[in-house]
Amino acid sequence: MKKPTIFVTNDDGIEAPGIRKLIDIVKPMGNVVVVAPDRHRSGTGHSITIDYPLRIKKLAESVHYKEYACNGLPVDCVKIGEKVVMGAKPDLLVSGINHGSNAMVNVIYSGTMAAVIEGCMSQIPSIGFSLDSHAFDADFDAAKAYIEKIIRMGLEQKLPGNSCLNVNIPAIPKEDIKGIKICRQGLGYWDESYEMRTDPRQTDYYWLKGKYVSLDGDRDTDEWALRNGYIAVVPVQFDLTHYKAIEALRGLNGNE
Amino acid sequence: MKKPTIFVTNDDGIEAPGIRKLIDIVKPMGNVVVVAPDRHRSGTGHSITIDYPLRIKKLAESVHYKEYACNGLPVDCVKIGEKVVMGAKPDLLVSGINHGSNAMVNVIYSGTMAAVIEGCMSQIPSIGFSLDSHAFDADFDAAKAYIEKIIRMGLEQKLPGNSCLNVNIPAIPKEDIKGIKICRQGLGYWDESYEMRTDPRQTDYYWLKGKYVSLDGDRDTDEWALRNGYIAVVPVQFDLTHYKAIEALRGLNGNE
Repeated sequence: MKKPTIFVTNDDGIEAPGIRKLIDIVKPMGNVVVVAPDRHRSGTGHSITIDYPLRIKKLAESVHYKEYACNGLPVDCVKIGEKVVMGAKPDLLVSGINHGSNAMVNVIYSGTMAAVIEGCMSQIPSIGFSLDSHAFDADFDAAKAYIEKIIRMGLEQKLPGNSCLNVNIPAIPKEDIKGIKICRQGLGYWDESYEMRTDPRQTDYYWLKGKYVSLDGDRDTDEWALRNGYIAVVPVQFDLTHYKAIEALRGLNGNE
Repeated sequence: MKKPTIFVTNDDGIEAPGIRKLIDIVKPMGNVVVVAPDRHRSGTGHSITIDYPLRIKKLAESVHYKEYACNGLPVDCVKIGEKVVMGAKPDLLVSGINHGSNAMVNVIYSGTMAAVIEGCMSQIPSIGFSLDSHAFDADFDAAKAYIEKIIRMGLEQKLPGNSCLNVNIPAIPKEDIKGIKICRQGLGYWDESYEMRTDPRQTDYYWLKGKYVSLDGDRDTDEWALRNGYIAVVPVQFDLTHYKAIEALRGLNGNE
């Protein structure tokens, strides 16, 4: 049987422990091609690079494994990975394992999930994995069996309705993980402020800080699942139309 | 009657003709606060700045008008505009007028629309305007009456279901504009490639290029509206859940 091609990327950069773990997991499952940012690119959303050209640097090559660092953003890595490095669509794209949750509204800011959505837009089955911990030495092993199960599913069957998956893993010991839960994106927002400081040249500058506020703790949300020891899996799509609002806006239609 | 506060931003930078035109349009309608990127920031999606601190520079201040340039991205401008410059939510956020269409899948990559979605996430009524032309001297005046109508609507009534609006304007003479059409986001993708070049140090680099391919020319799409001389208005939301896929994925639920 022909081995599937599995494309790996992330937004924490190619040296992050999370992507090294994800590479270890997928290596036995197919031919693996890694194209990931050459540095941390968290919070870069669906940004693409257009002001400067992209460069890729080969870091490893063997029969079943290739690895490249790219000076671009996660979405750039997906595009250049498909168009230049592979010259074809992979059978599966996986992104992560992200250091920190991309559940709830974080999916909008996440470079990890932007790579997944970009794959989905390019009609590649795509799955993003995130661990709810920012610790450098976080335990990416606890959920290994679940990650393998979800990846096998992505390889064996089409994801329904051209969806991609946002998988968030609680940072708890293996024995405490209750299993997988299919969810919807929980509603909430970041309650943010800026900390003002003054530089040695007496000019003010601002650092963003904030905490997440949930508006929606329902049992069918990713937030509830994560908080209660489940691996939260949200199927994701990229049609932003607010369908219910269309009817209510009909009054705007027509000439002035 | 108290004048409403209207917040203005964009992704083409504070000096772009499009935002200058939008500022001219809203100035008679309320107290105007502009916080916009100090340079072009197109295609930056929902990226936020976390690696370096933000700075803001006051460019103009009078009783009813304030203008600041920010070294950050469009989403940063919305956050620092609300939290630092205004210290309160404006009555309306408008973004643009973008140089180039943000209809169809472009809404995902757009910094202009990311600012609008960020406003919406912060529960501010938010509207993005884009003109389907990249020409520096494009005619931003042809649709002025329609832009004013949409902004008045945004000031006078709540946008339905906490939606925000993605308004795309065809680059045609005033007399050819057929009116406003409420639409859904058309389905399609960018058929892209990279042009490889070699720098004087004999290292390869890559420029992204591509053209848009429509998969969906239905009459209820923004693409159809734009192509047929209408101003396309798509109500937008930020819940990316693929609800129809949830049921189909239930098999993944539970323990391994």
